Amino acid sequence: MKTPAPALNEFALIARLTRNLPTSASTVIGPGDDCAVLDFGLPDRWLLFKTDAVVEGVHFHKSAAPERIGHKALGRCLSDVAAMAGTPTHAVVTLALPTGFDLAFVEGLYAGLRALAARHHVALVGGETTTDPEHIWLSVAVLGTVVPGKCPLRSGAKAGDALFVTGELGGSLAGKHLDFQPRLVEARWLVRHCPIHAMIDLSDGLAGDLRHVLSASAVGAELRAESVPVSRTARHAARTSSTPKPPLVAALTDGEDYELLFTVASRDAVRLLDAWKRTFAGLKLTCIGKITATPGLTLIDKKGRRSLSADGYVHFQKS
Amino acid sequence: MKTPAPALNEFALIARLTRNLPTSASTVIGPGDDCAVLDFGLPDRWLLFKTDAVVEGVHFHKSAAPERIGHKALGRCLSDVAAMAGTPTHAVVTLALPTGFDLAFVEGLYAGLRALAARHHVALVGGETTTDPEHIWLSVAVLGTVVPGKCPLRSGAKAGDALFVTGELGGSLAGKHLDFQPRLVEARWLVRHCPIHAMIDLSDGLAGDLRHVLSASAVGAELRAESVPVSRTARHAARTSSTPKPPLVAALTDGEDYELLFTVASRDAVRLLDAWKRTFAGLKLTCIGKITATPGLTLIDKKGRRSLSADGYVHFQKS
Repeated sequence: MKTPAPALNEFALIARLTRNLPTSASTVIGPGDDCAVLDFGLPDRWLLFKTDAVVEGVHFHKSAAPERIGHKALGRCLSDVAAMAGTPTHAVVTLALPTGFDLAFVEGLYAGLRALAARHHVALVGGETTTDPEHIWLSVAVLGTVVPGKCPLRSGAKAGDALFVTGELGGSLAGKHLDFQPRLVEARWLVRHCPIHAMIDLSDGLAGDLRHVLSASAVGAELRAESVPVSRTARHAARTSSTPKPPLVAALTDGEDYELLFTVASRDAVRLLDAWKRTFAGLKLTCIGKITATPGLTLIDKKGRRSLSADGYVHFQKS
Repeated sequence: MKTPAPALNEFALIARLTRNLPTSASTVIGPGDDCAVLDFGLPDRWLLFKTDAVVEGVHFHKSAAPERIGHKALGRCLSDVAAMAGTPTHAVVTLALPTGFDLAFVEGLYAGLRALAARHHVALVGGETTTDPEHIWLSVAVLGTVVPGKCPLRSGAKAGDALFVTGELGGSLAGKHLDFQPRLVEARWLVRHCPIHAMIDLSDGLAGDLRHVLSASAVGAELRAESVPVSRTARHAARTSSTPKPPLVAALTDGEDYELLFTVASRDAVRLLDAWKRTFAGLKLTCIGKITATPGLTLIDKKGRRSLSADGYVHFQKS
């Protein structure tokens, strides 16, 4: 039986497939957040568990330096651990290679994995290789730990919360998507310094990932267009690209920023910003809007208020 | 720089790539065994961590029932947990799909994953989907637990040990490779009833996987040809195939048996066999030879003793 499903996007598919999966008493959080959260009975730690993959032609081109591809493969999982304010501890890797692969390329991949793992004290405890007839891909699974009760979920945003984002957004495909630094230190600092209500890492783009938070928390949000921290790369591309895109659209929809998006009570916002600036002088933290009780995502700019509908990307470009 | 490496097989590559990987104090066993073994400070449990993948055209054909493909994807990891006498607890899955995929097919994959997970009380705690331009693959990562000190490694075989294998070998590609039952219950029973010196699951074939044990343990082995439990499928194929293969060669080299190969002190062998027969009436356990102090793998048959060299497969077929 063939059931073509052209309109079913990735998230709808995951939601459909992960309905009623087998669970267990030790599963604190199952599918649907940045990592699974597991309770093995440790008094001071929950475990985090996550897997992700990068595929040649989808997440990287073979012309990219292999060290950067290895970095990205592990970095994506570490960014998910960061979104839970966790500490990654161990990783395993499956590497799929066509026959007749280039050994220097593979060693470069591992050099990239190894350097990022060492930087964050992650032990690489297993590796499989497999054959793929067509192209290279890497699948990484990561374990980590988090302090019980200090693990921000997507579902914790509350009406009135201030909405923050780290770094700058947009234009990542020009290079950052292969070089980003997962915000692990920053995320753990955040939960130590302020009650973080909800957090997610930005992989699909601000508009898409914010929607995941809103949906999980059953709230809405107002974004102030002029506050969104648009990267220099996105601004530059808007001036020079043959297919230019408004910089704000790039920041909302390009994806692969691997920055943190989170919410805190509005009364904590100013104090948090001040402490952040003293600690992370080289990395922006920006309040870009607020959480609302009314569902939906609203963009506020000089022209007024605009609703970003569920098909935000297309809709926004047309408006 | 291009460094073609035609002669470097998968195991040599893994060995090369996993030299000097970042490790940590909590890593009991890193790369090189069936699972990584991790100590998070639980008094009564170590954690097991493993990832593996199945690729369309390599590990399955798209014409196979999707339920069986899902079963195999998870089953391969569970078989590795069995080889450590562990209990799998949680799994995460990355599913790569070409655009325009068949939804019923994907649901079938998940049905297969789900059924095997439920059977072994494994919680499916996360799933990613990604795009692959060419074909389908699934990568699975599994967590499990094992009793500290009751986790048989590849490196524990001792000269004089009796060498055992569960089930029957060879001909798996006719169907068993998609339907096998990981020997989880049997493995845990084994460590409760007898000191198991070394254990591995058979994925590459008896000749190949036994070599991993011999190498890790710095010992050799003698296999009695007439004792090797050749499957009916392999015998049947030898009579009817257009490219027949001696049944013993099939049992030694076909691979994907997902049975357990293990060693025990010779004094324990008879008692273990008797207890096994009373417990697992439907599953063979066979003593197929012994571990020797002299390195190398020797096959003993009616014609005498033959050495199986490192290129065992080719060499054996020619002899």
